[in-house]
Amino acid sequence: MIYVGDVMNNNTSELNRLEKARKIIRDIIKEKGREYLYDLTGIAGGFIIHKTDLELLETYVGPAIFSEKLNEVGVLHFGGAPSIHKAVGFNRTSAAIFSTIMALSNDITNVIHYVPKKPSHPSIPRSCKIFNLYYFESDNVDEILNRINEKTLTIITGATMDHKIVELENLKKIINSCNEKNSIVFIDDASGARLRLLYNQPPALKINADLAVTSTDKLMDGPRAGLLCGKKDLVDKIYNEGLKFGLEAQAPILAAMVNALKSFKLDNLKEALKRTENIDLSPLINAGFECEKTPTGFIIKNLSEEEYINVALKMLENYGIITITAAGMPGASKTLRIDFCSKDAKRLTDDYIINAIINSRI
Amino acid sequence: MIYVGDVMNNNTSELNRLEKARKIIRDIIKEKGREYLYDLTGIAGGFIIHKTDLELLETYVGPAIFSEKLNEVGVLHFGGAPSIHKAVGFNRTSAAIFSTIMALSNDITNVIHYVPKKPSHPSIPRSCKIFNLYYFESDNVDEILNRINEKTLTIITGATMDHKIVELENLKKIINSCNEKNSIVFIDDASGARLRLLYNQPPALKINADLAVTSTDKLMDGPRAGLLCGKKDLVDKIYNEGLKFGLEAQAPILAAMVNALKSFKLDNLKEALKRTENIDLSPLINAGFECEKTPTGFIIKNLSEEEYINVALKMLENYGIITITAAGMPGASKTLRIDFCSKDAKRLTDDYIINAIINSRI
Repeated sequence: MIYVGDVMNNNTSELNRLEKARKIIRDIIKEKGREYLYDLTGIAGGFIIHKTDLELLETYVGPAIFSEKLNEVGVLHFGGAPSIHKAVGFNRTSAAIFSTIMALSNDITNVIHYVPKKPSHPSIPRSCKIFNLYYFESDNVDEILNRINEKTLTIITGATMDHKIVELENLKKIINSCNEKNSIVFIDDASGARLRLLYNQPPALKINADLAVTSTDKLMDGPRAGLLCGKKDLVDKIYNEGLKFGLEAQAPILAAMVNALKSFKLDNLKEALKRTENIDLSPLINAGFECEKTPTGFIIKNLSEEEYINVALKMLENYGIITITAAGMPGASKTLRIDFCSKDAKRLTDDYIINAIINSRI
Repeated sequence: MIYVGDVMNNNTSELNRLEKARKIIRDIIKEKGREYLYDLTGIAGGFIIHKTDLELLETYVGPAIFSEKLNEVGVLHFGGAPSIHKAVGFNRTSAAIFSTIMALSNDITNVIHYVPKKPSHPSIPRSCKIFNLYYFESDNVDEILNRINEKTLTIITGATMDHKIVELENLKKIINSCNEKNSIVFIDDASGARLRLLYNQPPALKINADLAVTSTDKLMDGPRAGLLCGKKDLVDKIYNEGLKFGLEAQAPILAAMVNALKSFKLDNLKEALKRTENIDLSPLINAGFECEKTPTGFIIKNLSEEEYINVALKMLENYGIITITAAGMPGASKTLRIDFCSKDAKRLTDDYIINAIINSRI
C-alpha cells in the first residue's frame, strides 16, 4: 500500500523533473518551433475544436450542449446501451477514479484490484487511503475471486501503464463473479478501452462491467480527460459527488472529447501495431539495453529510476523526443516507453529513435 | 458542519434540477439560437482562444507553454511578487480548495473560516470532513482571532456567493494575526479578487495572505477554473498533491485563463456597478418580492428553496434568462441572483428582467 504521507516526501524532486522537462519543451518551441518536438508518449492527445463549438463554451451553456453529446458518443465507445448506461466527463481519469471511490465509500469496506502486472496506477491506492478503505491488489485471479463480496468494489485494470493487457478469460471470470455476488465491478480502461479492441476484446459494457473509465488522450486524439461510463444510477451518484469538489470536465474539454471520440479510428492503432512488429531492436540490445515490445511500441527495462530520468531528459533536450519518463505527472511510471501511436511518431524513422536512446545514455 | 453523507441524500433532486435546466438551454439553442439566451449569473465566463494557441494544446506540450504564462499573469492579478509568489491553474476553485486542505492536512488540526455572511461555500467544510479536520466558521472576527495558532489554517472568504464583501479592516486584522502567529492564511477570493478591487481594496498578496484562489469565470471572461496563487513552496506542495488526483487545469483551460486574465478590465465591472445603482426595483417590491442590491446586480431574498427553483426554471424557459438557481452546480446557493457583469446583460433592459421575475412567480 502507498500512503499519501510517504509519497509526499518525493514531491520536490518529481516537480523539479517536470519543470525541467517543461522548460526544455518551451525552449525548443521558442527557438526552433513545435515541429522539432516529437511526442512519443502515446498520450499526446489533442484538442479538436470547431468554430461553431467555440461560441458555446461558456460555463452554463457549454455543459448543457456537450454533456448530452458526450453521453451519446461515450456510451457507444464502451459498447453500452443508451437505455441503461450513461457517460460523463471528468477532468482526468484519476479524478473519475477518486470520485468513484469517494461516492461508494459509504457502501463498501474494501477495494480489490486486479492488475495484469503489478504495481497499480497510484491514484487507486491513494484514493482508498483517503477514505479509509482497505486496499488489496494482485495479478493472481484466484486471490481476487476469493475476496469479492457485497461490501467490495472490484477494479480491473484493462491495460497497465506499460501497456500489458488483461487476458479476456480473466476479465470475464472476475466480472461474472462480481455480477453473481451483486458486487460492483469497475474497469480502469485508461488505455485499455482502445488497446483491448486492438486484440479483439469486447468493450467494457458489452461484457457486463458496471462501470468503466478511459483517458481520451491515450491512443486517440482527445484532450487529457476521463470518460466515465456505466449504469445510470451509479454514474449519476459518482458525477454528482465529483461536481462538489470540482472534478468534472469543463465545457471546452467536453467539446474536444466529443470530437475526438467521433473521429477515433482503430486503423491508426493497427498501423502502430504493425510498425512495432517490424522494428529491429537489436542495436539497442547490442548497446546493453533490455527491451520488450508493447502492443504499439517498446519499453526499456533495465535502468534505474535515476538513469531513466537522465536518459529521458537528454532525449528531450537533444532529440526533441517527449516521453512520459521526462514529462509525465508525479507518480507516473518511470520506465522508458516509446509509443508509435502519435502523429509525431510518423515523422521519425526507427533509426532516429534508437540512436536517440543509445546516445542519451552516454 | 455539513457531512458528506447528509449532503448525498439531496443528490438526486439537485441533479434532476440541473438536467432540466440543461435541457431547456439545449432546446432554446436548437430551436431559436444562442442569442435567445441571457446568462445573468455573473459567472458566464468565456473561452478566449487564439488560433496560434490551438496548435499547442496537447497533453505535454500545452502545460509547458501555458503554465509559465499563467504564472506571470496570475501573480500580477493577485498583486504578488514573481520572486516569492507563484500561480497555478486548477480545474475549479473547489478543486484548488480541496487540494489545499489535502496538502496541508498532515500539518494542521483545525480549519477556521471567516465569512462576511454565513453560510460558507460547501466545498470548504466538505473537504475538512474528508480529512478529519475540525471545521469552524463564523462571521464574527473575534471568534476567529481567538482560534488562530500554528496548527490552524485560516480561510477568509473575500466575497460570498451572494456577493457580500469582507470589510478591509477585518481582512487585515485576521491576516496580521496569522502572520504574527506563523499560521497559514488563505483568501477564498472566488469572485472577491475582482469585487474587492471595485471597492478599492488591495489584491490578496499585497496584504500578506499566504495563499489566495479565484474563479476565472466569475466577473471576468475566463473559463470556469481556479487560479491559485501564493508563496512558492506552499503552491508547489498543493499543486503536486492536486496533480495526483487529476485536479489541475488542463492545457486548453490554462490557455483561456491566460487570455482572459490579460484582457480583464475593471471598467466592465464599474459599468455594472453604475447600472445597479440606477435600477429601480420598486415594481418587484410592489409585487411582494424582498430585494437587496449587490455590488453588480440584486438578489431576491424572501422565497423558499422550492419557489426559487420554480421561478428560475420558468425564467429560463420563458425568458431565456440563465441564473445560478436554475443551472448552478449541486450545493450552490439557491437565492435568486441577477448580475449585470455579463455581455448578455447588456442586451436586456431592466424592465425585461424585472417582468421576467414577476411573471415567473405566477
